Amino acid sequence: MRTEAAGSLADIFNLSPEFLPLAEALGDHLARSRRIFDDQLASDLPPVAELVEHIERYHGKMLRPTMVLLAGLAAHPRAGQTPPDQLLSDQHSKIGAVCEMVHLATLVHDDVLDEADIRRRGATVNHLKGNEAAVILGDYLIAGAYHLCSTLPTQRAALAIGRASMVVCAGELLQLHHRGDYSLDEPTYFEIVDRKTAELIAVSAELGAHASGADDATCAALAAFARKLGIAFQIQDDLLDLTGAEGVVGKSVGKDLEKGKMTLPLIHHLATADPLTRGRTLSLLEQARAEEETRRPVDVGPQVVRLVESTASIDYARGCAKSLVEAAQQHIAILADSPAKRVLGVLARAVVERAF
Amino acid sequence: MRTEAAGSLADIFNLSPEFLPLAEALGDHLARSRRIFDDQLASDLPPVAELVEHIERYHGKMLRPTMVLLAGLAAHPRAGQTPPDQLLSDQHSKIGAVCEMVHLATLVHDDVLDEADIRRRGATVNHLKGNEAAVILGDYLIAGAYHLCSTLPTQRAALAIGRASMVVCAGELLQLHHRGDYSLDEPTYFEIVDRKTAELIAVSAELGAHASGADDATCAALAAFARKLGIAFQIQDDLLDLTGAEGVVGKSVGKDLEKGKMTLPLIHHLATADPLTRGRTLSLLEQARAEEETRRPVDVGPQVVRLVESTASIDYARGCAKSLVEAAQQHIAILADSPAKRVLGVLARAVVERAF
Repeated sequence: MRTEAAGSLADIFNLSPEFLPLAEALGDHLARSRRIFDDQLASDLPPVAELVEHIERYHGKMLRPTMVLLAGLAAHPRAGQTPPDQLLSDQHSKIGAVCEMVHLATLVHDDVLDEADIRRRGATVNHLKGNEAAVILGDYLIAGAYHLCSTLPTQRAALAIGRASMVVCAGELLQLHHRGDYSLDEPTYFEIVDRKTAELIAVSAELGAHASGADDATCAALAAFARKLGIAFQIQDDLLDLTGAEGVVGKSVGKDLEKGKMTLPLIHHLATADPLTRGRTLSLLEQARAEEETRRPVDVGPQVVRLVESTASIDYARGCAKSLVEAAQQHIAILADSPAKRVLGVLARAVVERAF
Repeated sequence: MRTEAAGSLADIFNLSPEFLPLAEALGDHLARSRRIFDDQLASDLPPVAELVEHIERYHGKMLRPTMVLLAGLAAHPRAGQTPPDQLLSDQHSKIGAVCEMVHLATLVHDDVLDEADIRRRGATVNHLKGNEAAVILGDYLIAGAYHLCSTLPTQRAALAIGRASMVVCAGELLQLHHRGDYSLDEPTYFEIVDRKTAELIAVSAELGAHASGADDATCAALAAFARKLGIAFQIQDDLLDLTGAEGVVGKSVGKDLEKGKMTLPLIHHLATADPLTRGRTLSLLEQARAEEETRRPVDVGPQVVRLVESTASIDYARGCAKSLVEAAQQHIAILADSPAKRVLGVLARAVVERAF
């Protein structure tokens, strides 16, 4: 498991040899997070154990545990002076497991909401075992996360995770409220994304830094870095959902279009297009939603992409994501130079350059 | 709100004047729990606030907060010597709010699972706002509960609530696994009920006692009392779902039958009926499930009840609930006499005598 984790990280970052000790420490602690994760969710009841095993497939990029560990390394008062494996503690691995658990719970519940059949190339829990099992399994993950959190030496992490989870839910409810609202503006979009996606990533970084004994200013800097990164991450997801419709990335037709979820390229497009173009796009968006409701396949994705490109809105969203990544890096400029700090920079750029 | 809460308690317990100071203190602290509940879930986002407001309707008997408070009073080292209102603290109200929040989260999610349209004479969240909003709202409640829990002076309550929530989910998953399994035996039934229903009620009592500074033996006694009461409570729910099919209580046809949930009277009946009767019951149970799937109303409830009565299985289940209530009372025999202890006895009997 260790090799696998280290391997996937090295793949993402395209790490050069100077980062190998760091990659080793990260791989080791990600594997520990996975073990803590598994131990925490283990059940004496076979039907529960079987469902939990299925959750294994939901682990993806492990972005949140990675953020805990990298922030823990970069924010450490001895960052760059002490080998990485001596800067990380069991607390970091535990917090990583907690953040991953909360995140996977939202994925399991999102799949219920989206009626998704496939997640990370495997069948979803709701598809295999029904929505009922998926709802309860998500609750089991959340309960596991909170319980694990409360085994840490102080209440700080539990408070932060509890509060962040409320913020994430509020963001999801706000998004749901604006589903199919084609007049959604940029400030509301950013409010949704800030809560729904960026909050948990920011808390991951903040708690990782705090577990390393970093001072408040340093913790806040890491949180601010991760928050901007999280928003950029979501914009990239928006772009992949849209460009994926062209068959570029081999993904299915944009779920966002079907679900009436407004994404940044669409918002920019509708705000800048001439009335005729705007009308054509809106009519396609209505078709995509009808498609979702009737379950008849009418793939309007490619046509929407062409219209969105006509107002340079894909470039606009890409530009926003890039600016956010640059702004994110400014937040950690105050940190002493270290391999972890540099890898945070690599990670930030990878977020907007990824095609997966 | 205070009057309302005190009023509903007095109704349930049919309290005599000697219990009035106790009822006052309970009403006061239940009202505080409600305020803490509302404050904790308040949101700056109007769509979130609107959904949360709907949750208000889900408050029912407030059994779990009541259990926190009564256990807190009965287990207090000065129980019976000091007026009730001086024995309860903010901690009790907070723990009550936490337990109610966790419970309501399971109700909101259960309604998604059951596709229920009505809960406590009002439309359910899933019916009004869709399953998606109901899933996220439930998550918001859980997050709120855990966050609130972590504001208590120690981690004990957060650990207990986190662990109990995992147990509840595991019980629900076990129940789901055995849905439509007409060979379910009593030990498995009691394992499900112990986890799904009794666990949170037991933790409510245990935490209430602990917040009063009770020693470990006293806390354990209150937890054991509440656990048996919780199991009896579920058996009574089983009975009401079944006898409700006769139109006695004015409830709709038993959801348990439709959902293939095995209840204690049915388990006893199938285990003791002669082969012919058993076959007739099984065929009716299959019909009830088909009814759920096809959504065509075929009310087999009254026929099932007649068959179940032929093996005296309703009396058997009633007897089990009564024995559990008696055994529960034995657990708190060690407590010093106090109005709260006596009201716990009244509450225990009310659980198996209620028709609502």
